[in-house]
Amino acid sequence: MTGEVIRSADIDPSRLEVELTKSPKTIPPTNQLVFGRTFTDHMLTIPWNSQTGWGTPKIQPYAPLQLDPSSTVLHYAPTLFEGLKAYKGKDGVLRLFRPDKNMERMNRSAARLAFPTFTGENVTQLIKKLVEVDSKWVPSDPGTSLYIRPTMIGTQAGLGVGASTDVLLFVIASPVGPYYSTGFKPVKLYATTKDVRAWPGGTGGFKLGSNYAAGVVPQQQAAALGYQQILWLFGPEHRLTEVGTMNLWVALRKDDGGLELITPPLEDMILPGVTRDSVLALARDHASGKRKLAGLPDKFTVSERNLTMPELVEASRNGSLSEVFGSGTAAIVSCVDGIGYEGELVKVPCGEDGLGDVARVMLREIVGRQTGDIPSEWSFPVDA
Amino acid sequence: MTGEVIRSADIDPSRLEVELTKSPKTIPPTNQLVFGRTFTDHMLTIPWNSQTGWGTPKIQPYAPLQLDPSSTVLHYAPTLFEGLKAYKGKDGVLRLFRPDKNMERMNRSAARLAFPTFTGENVTQLIKKLVEVDSKWVPSDPGTSLYIRPTMIGTQAGLGVGASTDVLLFVIASPVGPYYSTGFKPVKLYATTKDVRAWPGGTGGFKLGSNYAAGVVPQQQAAALGYQQILWLFGPEHRLTEVGTMNLWVALRKDDGGLELITPPLEDMILPGVTRDSVLALARDHASGKRKLAGLPDKFTVSERNLTMPELVEASRNGSLSEVFGSGTAAIVSCVDGIGYEGELVKVPCGEDGLGDVARVMLREIVGRQTGDIPSEWSFPVDA
Repeated sequence: MTGEVIRSADIDPSRLEVELTKSPKTIPPTNQLVFGRTFTDHMLTIPWNSQTGWGTPKIQPYAPLQLDPSSTVLHYAPTLFEGLKAYKGKDGVLRLFRPDKNMERMNRSAARLAFPTFTGENVTQLIKKLVEVDSKWVPSDPGTSLYIRPTMIGTQAGLGVGASTDVLLFVIASPVGPYYSTGFKPVKLYATTKDVRAWPGGTGGFKLGSNYAAGVVPQQQAAALGYQQILWLFGPEHRLTEVGTMNLWVALRKDDGGLELITPPLEDMILPGVTRDSVLALARDHASGKRKLAGLPDKFTVSERNLTMPELVEASRNGSLSEVFGSGTAAIVSCVDGIGYEGELVKVPCGEDGLGDVARVMLREIVGRQTGDIPSEWSFPVDA
Repeated sequence: MTGEVIRSADIDPSRLEVELTKSPKTIPPTNQLVFGRTFTDHMLTIPWNSQTGWGTPKIQPYAPLQLDPSSTVLHYAPTLFEGLKAYKGKDGVLRLFRPDKNMERMNRSAARLAFPTFTGENVTQLIKKLVEVDSKWVPSDPGTSLYIRPTMIGTQAGLGVGASTDVLLFVIASPVGPYYSTGFKPVKLYATTKDVRAWPGGTGGFKLGSNYAAGVVPQQQAAALGYQQILWLFGPEHRLTEVGTMNLWVALRKDDGGLELITPPLEDMILPGVTRDSVLALARDHASGKRKLAGLPDKFTVSERNLTMPELVEASRNGSLSEVFGSGTAAIVSCVDGIGYEGELVKVPCGEDGLGDVARVMLREIVGRQTGDIPSEWSFPVDA
């Protein structure tokens, strides 16, 4: 080290430089928004180099990145991302939903890729700045939000496989219309016994870009058979793991008239979803009596445990299957009304509104906390 | 379709446009070359769009790619690559080594990512053009070559996970000095029982970028323990699969005094290496008597079969382990002289020249065909 270089071991929000766009874009009407196609006027960038550490955070006009054709991300896929949303409440306040959980997971992903880590609060603070700068892009119609995509990529030029010496953390944002503009539509899943998403000792429990590329062809094959999403199974016993890019939930009716809400345990293989964590916390508080939720039965248990397709088929047959749904940042909940498995369609009950009983309650409770209608420590006001 | 757009279902080399650089770079001396750090003056690009098909192939000055920050490759890692080499023979002729195998594998990878496929010969023809344009970059010292990196990435802007509507095929090239400038140095492997590279139903048998990012941290951990490469195992029985980014070979002495050369079967999990295929073909021709190779014993069998670490440990103990080596485009062969496994160092014999008997013969035979010293249908002259 020459001593001339500022080596920053952490991201420093006080060094933020803001360059506003000179040519702001036209904001499309909410009902014309397609998920992830329209981006706001600005983006946040924070470079890192193994010699000089974290560089100057910049909010600057949204623009293409210039990447050397040998940049490591283009060859060996060192990339991770997060997804979170900003909401405009009836009170006009902009709020992020649980960004602390995203930053925690982002740091776990970063460590898994030999990327630098950082203090999550510092990036949350910078994301708030970005949302403030682009605040007119946050839609306010019910069910709308500003989707925020923090990303980290290995950028150094050079073809050796190894730890990235240059990394770019960037954040872009996209206004999204109501995810279900035509109401809640249940989906049919195709349970694949051929392709495997994740395995013990692999990276399925981290939010890495490399977990996603291989899912496209199975998804296309499922779509060709008339299914909307893949149900990923694991092992010879056909354990249920995830739905497309969502976490999976199954509710079973018990002999005592109560419900058991089941989601697979994280172990190495399940993505630790923020919505998954939120559903678990709400469901456990109801089950323990700490905070009862209207619409859920009194007798209610929550299990992080494995469930196999043969068990699900049996529950569908004997009437104990109450509902199946996926959870994720994009749709919050997405209910399932059928699963194609080994040439048969397993029927799954679903309410007339396109939601099962548990999913309907969770949607209400989570949206309430996202918009600020239900006061919650999960809400992070942007101007706070 | 309006009829105005040329929809090209295949890559058309006759449409090639060449734009030569106005500022050629200085070519570094061969002994200063670091693998994959220096690139030639030009690159080949061929765009594809789902509406218009394959676009105009261009050879143009090597320059950064402009990618929208929402480009799918940066988020979901749809990327694949190939590695092959051009050699300058003593006769001055430039030759590619088995590019047909790379193109075949590239098309398999493309299909796995829902990318467009193409006629391999057409891209080989364009790669030959690139090598011709940058021919002064092909070094001629023994053991040197021009490393060629064909790549395909999903480029469209937009955050939905789905098939890429825009893809860029590009080819860059990098002169490489002799891989082992200080002679052949055997490597020690760390057999990990924690991290798993590939899984049945996964993508380990395809050359996708997404297979590589997760290997960096295990590699760092192995290096911290004093090992040069990871030995990837699979399953509770600890099957040997691959070495770092190379295919794996084990030679065992048999009771009859002969040798058995073993490599794991491809199944879903092993990368179908071009060097692996070449070693297999040469070894089988020797075993069958079709083409005997000096230096290999007469009694010689070749097996694509699984071998477990306990079997290898036993072979090391009882003296039947003859050698272990990795094979790949970069190093051709790389011999192993020890394997760290469950807290013990398993000793592996290795010749004084840093090569085992089989690896030494394979190196000689493959290099001979790469440089043109041994006439072979594996050689593809560039100006043919």
